[in-house]
Amino acid sequence: MSKRFFNPYPKYLQVREMLVRRIEREMSVGSQLPTETRLSSEFGVSRETIREALKGLEEDGMITRQRGQGTFVSKLPPALTEHRLTGMSEDFSDLKFNTEATVLEKGPIVAPPAVEQMLRPAPTEMIYRIARLRHYEGTPFAHHEAFMSLELGVQIAKLDLSHTSVLRELRGTLGLEVWEDYQRIEAQVADTGLAEMLDIAVGAPLLYIMRHFLDEAGHSVVLFRSHYRADRYYYSLKLAS
Amino acid sequence: MSKRFFNPYPKYLQVREMLVRRIEREMSVGSQLPTETRLSSEFGVSRETIREALKGLEEDGMITRQRGQGTFVSKLPPALTEHRLTGMSEDFSDLKFNTEATVLEKGPIVAPPAVEQMLRPAPTEMIYRIARLRHYEGTPFAHHEAFMSLELGVQIAKLDLSHTSVLRELRGTLGLEVWEDYQRIEAQVADTGLAEMLDIAVGAPLLYIMRHFLDEAGHSVVLFRSHYRADRYYYSLKLAS
Repeated sequence: MSKRFFNPYPKYLQVREMLVRRIEREMSVGSQLPTETRLSSEFGVSRETIREALKGLEEDGMITRQRGQGTFVSKLPPALTEHRLTGMSEDFSDLKFNTEATVLEKGPIVAPPAVEQMLRPAPTEMIYRIARLRHYEGTPFAHHEAFMSLELGVQIAKLDLSHTSVLRELRGTLGLEVWEDYQRIEAQVADTGLAEMLDIAVGAPLLYIMRHFLDEAGHSVVLFRSHYRADRYYYSLKLAS
Repeated sequence: MSKRFFNPYPKYLQVREMLVRRIEREMSVGSQLPTETRLSSEFGVSRETIREALKGLEEDGMITRQRGQGTFVSKLPPALTEHRLTGMSEDFSDLKFNTEATVLEKGPIVAPPAVEQMLRPAPTEMIYRIARLRHYEGTPFAHHEAFMSLELGVQIAKLDLSHTSVLRELRGTLGLEVWEDYQRIEAQVADTGLAEMLDIAVGAPLLYIMRHFLDEAGHSVVLFRSHYRADRYYYSLKLAS
């Protein structure tokens, strides 16, 4: 664990990521990349780091290097994005995406202020927290926290949550009518705890999504906080029909 | 410029950011922080780095350090998020948010493959691109690219775009009926070009939002790609009413 920590996100991986984005954004098959020397001065890193970054791109088949000629784009990087999951976790349990969630922690806690502010229970009340790690094809890609009343939490925590979402169980198994009221989306970077759980480097980008649900009377029911690995997930919305 | 480049995001700033998140997520006013020694071993950085990070938090009034007693949370960090902008750029020009956009580049280009795939012009057609940098209180916080047909682009580019959005001008000034069809949100990290334009360190987190608009007949009209500084912007949606 300690070896992957706080280097923070190896330089050659950052350079590689930036080159992939640049290829995706600006280049076509056949485009020529700048020389190692130029890339090295542009990114302010050693030629070894540039070479390491290019090696990875070559292994991915994205570039080919021709001795004495230069480096050329041989394949565009749609795979980078198209293999990522999208949609909300309540959709992941469909046949299409066979994700699996492991419960990391569950139990009553004193609400953290940011959560209390949204959920607004009585000031002395404890709330129930369920923290889960979601995997796809054996690799973790999301850390979910669900906050709700003790009553609901105890009922939800009894269920097998490995192939479902808390929302689906609230609606389906417990028969509650809940409506999404507020959603908030941010970019964050992984801190030590999330980096370890999600198996990424500290400082790697995360998509953070907070969702708040109300019942029909307008009372707060559940608050979700999810951190998604940016390399394995993006959020998309189809709007017009 | 080169000095801010690729260090990539100083360690003490990362530690500071992580501590702010932890305080926001888990602590209350009066909570005690771990000792410098413990933080130093947890984050795998020197005590100097920890001290540097704590110094910033102390200056922000978020913690107080009592000699021989320890370090305590004295203020929660709502400012971190509440001072950030939210909402889509077409709302920023309301009185509420006095943002300002500078046109960086405008003109016809060969569509990058990712854009062409969405906009689907005829294969030989050029498209018009307008790149802008949006400021709030004098500091840049968003980089916008708008892609559209040459005809529309030429008309839009003639307008003064400093206090409006391209979307607003398409709808208002040109009188087009456009509907949002698809939106995609990702977390990314700043590459060299965006870091320089947005005045942040390479590797700092960015929220990336892509939006695609159609006309009433279902034809592609405009595609937007925006990169927002994560420390100055989050995306929020009020859903239920």
